[in-house]
Amino acid sequence: MSEPPATPYPQLSNASLDTTICVQPVDEYGQAREGYISAERPLTIYLDKREILTLMTMGSQPELLVLGWLRNQNLITELAQLKAIQVDWETESVAVTTFQGVEGLDEKLGRKTVTTGCGQGTMFGNLMDRLDQLQLPAVTVQQSQLYDTLHALTEYNEIYRRAGAVHGCALCAGTDILSFVEDVGRHNAVDTIAGHMWLHGIVGGDKLFYTTGRLTSEMVIKVAQMGVPVLLSRSGVTEMGLALAKKLGVILIARAKGRHFLVYNGVERVVFDAMPRRVEADA
Amino acid sequence: MSEPPATPYPQLSNASLDTTICVQPVDEYGQAREGYISAERPLTIYLDKREILTLMTMGSQPELLVLGWLRNQNLITELAQLKAIQVDWETESVAVTTFQGVEGLDEKLGRKTVTTGCGQGTMFGNLMDRLDQLQLPAVTVQQSQLYDTLHALTEYNEIYRRAGAVHGCALCAGTDILSFVEDVGRHNAVDTIAGHMWLHGIVGGDKLFYTTGRLTSEMVIKVAQMGVPVLLSRSGVTEMGLALAKKLGVILIARAKGRHFLVYNGVERVVFDAMPRRVEADA
Repeated sequence: MSEPPATPYPQLSNASLDTTICVQPVDEYGQAREGYISAERPLTIYLDKREILTLMTMGSQPELLVLGWLRNQNLITELAQLKAIQVDWETESVAVTTFQGVEGLDEKLGRKTVTTGCGQGTMFGNLMDRLDQLQLPAVTVQQSQLYDTLHALTEYNEIYRRAGAVHGCALCAGTDILSFVEDVGRHNAVDTIAGHMWLHGIVGGDKLFYTTGRLTSEMVIKVAQMGVPVLLSRSGVTEMGLALAKKLGVILIARAKGRHFLVYNGVERVVFDAMPRRVEADA
Repeated sequence: MSEPPATPYPQLSNASLDTTICVQPVDEYGQAREGYISAERPLTIYLDKREILTLMTMGSQPELLVLGWLRNQNLITELAQLKAIQVDWETESVAVTTFQGVEGLDEKLGRKTVTTGCGQGTMFGNLMDRLDQLQLPAVTVQQSQLYDTLHALTEYNEIYRRAGAVHGCALCAGTDILSFVEDVGRHNAVDTIAGHMWLHGIVGGDKLFYTTGRLTSEMVIKVAQMGVPVLLSRSGVTEMGLALAKKLGVILIARAKGRHFLVYNGVERVVFDAMPRRVEADA
């Protein structure tokens, strides 16, 4: 996920770090057990030398995380604005350099919403106001494709299984998992995928977005911003996540495990072509 | 959890809302199913008429949430500073009124850390700097007490089971669950409990704090700020959560389910007085 873009800019450092640390907790028998925990590191964003904020991240793909974060916060709207994103773990900071500065930065930073999303639960700028402009294609989803995608995803979530303290997100095209990102906060993961899509010019209209996390308002907004019309989650849905999915026309499928799932929005565009046999219902 | 404090101030509204909404998703058989999702509402905090930020919350105990949030963000340090906390869902806002204003508010609002915590993952002020002042009692924990507490907790997590999109936190004294709070973000839940403790003058030194969520840096910091020396979680631990627990002397026990648990910090202060029989290990 870190190939250079077509243009030489933005110049990205390559400061990926190990995402799990081996520790020795003691179990209920008083026995030391080898176990992994997820990394968690502060990364302070400086935009043209101005301190914006500090993210807590696992650090697996910090450049793409920051790129996607800047995009999803509407702080940077054109890739061409960016000259460089340089991560320096020594100082736990990332220097974001633009060619010509960011117009109306103060205004954009003024408004804060602390969301229910895991991780970077803060949305700067008046993000909600831009939602009306979003146009998502009215795609259909086949149940068989959902199952194929879920099956393809079972190979992932490694860190989740190892460390048990992270969220995974994936950008999927059928059974092709184009990008799978885990972080201590799922919004880091979704922003990292957004950065990947933006950097490589990947469109979202024909993709499906999967997350292990809950479908809150911020999740739905961010995925819609990425142009992805289908949102699939292993977890549940919140009131505002559902309301926004209805407003934006996002197909919202949650509680997806094995053969089970619940369609919360867009069921008229779901083709039930692979219904399990009833006997499997209790499986 | 909403009895009035000993003094008439702060004056709190009582704007608790229903925390789950009944919806009808469609399952993998194409059948409509009745299901619950968790509420999620914006609540914009105005401190002496100044807009601070917007929290996304389930709205179960918004006054205590805001009270605890102000405390944990170090924006309000003395209960006596507060005249009123008035929630108005019509305008999705809460008016926090102080008697004499907040000193150095600009400075406190200047520094932001977006953490990996669910929910209000933002810490204003220089919270980390204050950690050195924290003094936690060097308590011991008995395995039998852990099991009793976990058993007592099984009756809770109702919303979690119903809606599946919330986090639960509890303040426990043995098998007494003094406060159990759920919200779409676990930091809302921990702040609500902090507000409850603060309002009613409950000390944390002899308590245990349970959360369904991950033990990230922000979780450990907030619980330590509440003076609670034992942190128990059903989920995992992150690198910085563990590092802070070591620094602050918090007993950190995670992956606690049934008879299983893993002690990540403070094992020398855990009394293994109820080890399961080996045969139960595979249960």
